[in-house]
Amino acid sequence: MTLIANTPTPPYYAVIFTSLRTEGDNGYSQMTERLVELASKQTGFLGIETARENVGITVTYWSDLESIKQWKENSEHQEAQRLGHEKWYSSFKTRISKVESDYGI
Amino acid sequence: MTLIANTPTPPYYAVIFTSLRTEGDNGYSQMTERLVELASKQTGFLGIETARENVGITVTYWSDLESIKQWKENSEHQEAQRLGHEKWYSSFKTRISKVESDYGI
Repeated sequence: MTLIANTPTPPYYAVIFTSLRTEGDNGYSQMTERLVELASKQTGFLGIETARENVGITVTYWSDLESIKQWKENSEHQEAQRLGHEKWYSSFKTRISKVESDYGI
Repeated sequence: MTLIANTPTPPYYAVIFTSLRTEGDNGYSQMTERLVELASKQTGFLGIETARENVGITVTYWSDLESIKQWKENSEHQEAQRLGHEKWYSSFKTRISKVESDYGI
């Protein structure tokens, strides 16, 4: 896993997940590690970037909307989403976006 | 400034800026603070989310592509971009994306 995702030439999709955590770990770290491993094996997965300071931001990159839908419906991911609602996040926002252009060094 | 941006109903735009820093501050913190202040006054600015851990991720939200273009061409921002290339970042990627849907708690 690279720190800055090595994504292909646009267009492709970005899922921007921004969250505020509750107190305590409650199994969060272990699940996060497992989910990254699992996501990276999904069809259409292109990369992931993540950082947490006051707020957590995780961006996953995907080739198409169908792959994002399938990942959302993955059973282990569904369980994580349930625990996220119930235990880990006081607030979150998921944004599904289409990357139209990019540049960098 | 809220930690999770209070964005309107999609569609709108997200500029995902992911970066790796060089060593030392070199005026970076002061400029970042100034840029956030400046960006938030721009036409079409909708919000900002930012976190740095191993990698830095800053997402700014905008109403349209023209506003993003104008912000990129802002003179103080241009100077910051020049310093970013020269001093602050060993690597970065900017992705311009259109948010098509969102949900959260």
